[in-house]
Amino acid sequence: MPDTPAPGSPGIDADRLWSRLMALAEITDPDAPWTRRSFTLLFLKGRAWVQAEFEAAGLEVRIDAGGNLIGRLPGRGNGAPVMIGSHSDSVPSGGRFDGMLGLLGALEVAQAIREAGVVPDRDIEVVDFLAEEPSDFGLSCIGSRAMTGGLTDEMLALRHPDGRTLAEAIAEVGGRPDAIAATALGPGALSAFLEIHIEQAKRLEGSGTDIGVVTGIAGIRRWRVTLEGRADHSGATPMGQRMDALVAAAPLVEAVEAMAEAFDPAAGLVATVGRIEVSPNAANAVPGRVALIVEVRAVQVAALDAFAEALTARAEARGAERGVAVTVAPVSATLPAPCAPEMQQAIAQAAEAAGLSHMPLNSGAGHDAAFLSQIAPAGMIFTPCRDGRSHTPEEWADPKHCADGARVLLGAVMSIVAPMGGPT
Amino acid sequence: MPDTPAPGSPGIDADRLWSRLMALAEITDPDAPWTRRSFTLLFLKGRAWVQAEFEAAGLEVRIDAGGNLIGRLPGRGNGAPVMIGSHSDSVPSGGRFDGMLGLLGALEVAQAIREAGVVPDRDIEVVDFLAEEPSDFGLSCIGSRAMTGGLTDEMLALRHPDGRTLAEAIAEVGGRPDAIAATALGPGALSAFLEIHIEQAKRLEGSGTDIGVVTGIAGIRRWRVTLEGRADHSGATPMGQRMDALVAAAPLVEAVEAMAEAFDPAAGLVATVGRIEVSPNAANAVPGRVALIVEVRAVQVAALDAFAEALTARAEARGAERGVAVTVAPVSATLPAPCAPEMQQAIAQAAEAAGLSHMPLNSGAGHDAAFLSQIAPAGMIFTPCRDGRSHTPEEWADPKHCADGARVLLGAVMSIVAPMGGPT
Repeated sequence: MPDTPAPGSPGIDADRLWSRLMALAEITDPDAPWTRRSFTLLFLKGRAWVQAEFEAAGLEVRIDAGGNLIGRLPGRGNGAPVMIGSHSDSVPSGGRFDGMLGLLGALEVAQAIREAGVVPDRDIEVVDFLAEEPSDFGLSCIGSRAMTGGLTDEMLALRHPDGRTLAEAIAEVGGRPDAIAATALGPGALSAFLEIHIEQAKRLEGSGTDIGVVTGIAGIRRWRVTLEGRADHSGATPMGQRMDALVAAAPLVEAVEAMAEAFDPAAGLVATVGRIEVSPNAANAVPGRVALIVEVRAVQVAALDAFAEALTARAEARGAERGVAVTVAPVSATLPAPCAPEMQQAIAQAAEAAGLSHMPLNSGAGHDAAFLSQIAPAGMIFTPCRDGRSHTPEEWADPKHCADGARVLLGAVMSIVAPMGGPT
Repeated sequence: MPDTPAPGSPGIDADRLWSRLMALAEITDPDAPWTRRSFTLLFLKGRAWVQAEFEAAGLEVRIDAGGNLIGRLPGRGNGAPVMIGSHSDSVPSGGRFDGMLGLLGALEVAQAIREAGVVPDRDIEVVDFLAEEPSDFGLSCIGSRAMTGGLTDEMLALRHPDGRTLAEAIAEVGGRPDAIAATALGPGALSAFLEIHIEQAKRLEGSGTDIGVVTGIAGIRRWRVTLEGRADHSGATPMGQRMDALVAAAPLVEAVEAMAEAFDPAAGLVATVGRIEVSPNAANAVPGRVALIVEVRAVQVAALDAFAEALTARAEARGAERGVAVTVAPVSATLPAPCAPEMQQAIAQAAEAAGLSHMPLNSGAGHDAAFLSQIAPAGMIFTPCRDGRSHTPEEWADPKHCADGARVLLGAVMSIVAPMGGPT
């Protein structure tokens, strides 16, 4: 049932939002809930559902050149559009809220405004960004990169293990890869970008706070650290004659943790070896080649630089120690992205107006908002999630927290599209 | 051209042997030479080629209950058959000689005997054992286990990642899984088993010796060491709140090497972490679960036992240190297998008669001969291979060394089936 708003002003329908979250979640690989990876048939099935919901809510639907699905609530044209939304793709065996809450919360906001008979003074666009999570192309935030001019020809040429290029895959979901560069948005193209997201950490839950006002999004750098030893038969090769790439690589995994822990906790730097590829990876073969994907995240560029230097030195030293060839190749790098002060203020005021407690937070996770912040004032609304769990089937957000996020987004959007005394 | 033998006695055709080795090698995954994994369509294609060669050489072909392909040269029945052979399957991106030399060398020996008009005093059986290399069922030496009564119902119920059971897969290659137990061979069923194999190490090449007379085959034990932490979002989970299974597992990889190196080199013990499985194995996820496949090989049971104890203690200590759950589960275990003294003598004498140098060696690698040694006097003939490389596309054996192996096998077989003064 919708919130009971002041007469003539829109209110969030918490039940409708929750029903949509649960309905989209059901579009999953049944053997590995909750999985809806970008560029799969399941993803397209989810997209078709989202598009139908956009249309039922009265939005005008299009897919942009970068493959982003956009639903538009037309306004009076007094300014550039306000964009709100997130993404519908998941990691393998991920959750039901990461991305989906931001997308369906934004849809709820646009629908509530429309159903209240409010004509916004500028367009409101609800967006489902393409492939926010790392895909099999080895790249994340593909749609928001494309929208903001950050998707290079080199990235478009990346290949899926099945042989497709990213450009081909974007075309398959309805984008026009040839038009991405020409249609990318620049500064001024949007009045604002706002995104709701579960916190994916425990600071809100731990402190009993309703809303996180995000101050900035960590920059992320990833490297592929490859150690090239020699594959040999495990039974026939004496210990002293081996060039075991896995033995060479192992201490780097611990070193990445130790290097991260050496930073002041206030820097919020985290580093992870999340992925390891071993060849031949057979019980009876001495590993010949190992690649570690090393990731670091921090909101300070200086911390990212210092980590990069320490990693390279440590990896090269280990290679020399074991007589294996080591390469440290950058895979991706995003700059830390500050949230716009006026968006932080709008979010905080909307929380207060809704009677919700709030606190400033930074985001260790990357988000499409980091790319949008390059061309528009961007803000993020964090909501609590259970035990900080995310990217796992146990990810959970209470219905009330989901609705609270939408209430705050509604208030922030209304402060832009229908400011006090402005047109209603 | 065949060796020029004494009138009326058989000789090896080195060119024919080499042509067959090169022809069978061509039946490979073209994208990953040299690959012909058991239970694949390529394997069946290779088997069809081997069967046609058996038939062209005048052997009577059958497939036994365990899926082994056998070609029989009938003899006079004065004793149990002599079995010779090896296997035609390979590891992924393996070599052209491991297994294939033993199989095609045995075929050459049987054909040479037949073509010389010698009727052996007992049957000679050339065998292509099923799935000697580790298959996707997680088990090696499937055919020789089956033939000697060592393939349990539990093993037959193992499942391929595609869902098939091992029993189903054995039936697909022409075996009769229901008849394996009833038809298994016991002591006395064979007069002898002899196998040629590339050394897969550098002792022959390094010392310029032609032939290795194998004294025993190492026992092999494998464990799955599983560390259960907690998968979390890599960006949103502070360092101090993680249960990273990969960081927990990493020092065990080094520990396995250190534990092996702590044994007296004379024990010939080798230990390897050849395989690692990480979940979710994504750049932006803290690893939640890691499994290491740990393998140890030694010719002394006491050394295997001591390693097992050290591994378990170290893994449990590491689990306690990091607060992750650790299990050390046995995957497989084979006992060390001594070669029969009379077979070692027959091989050494055959080498001398052929003017070839020889030395005693043990085998760090497992072989079908280890299973056959449980029911028959077993012997192995090692031949040099370049730089000791095996289980890699660079695996190489010179044509002369291949032919020398067959010459020694021929001599050893003749000493059993046509002893001096016996029937020719």
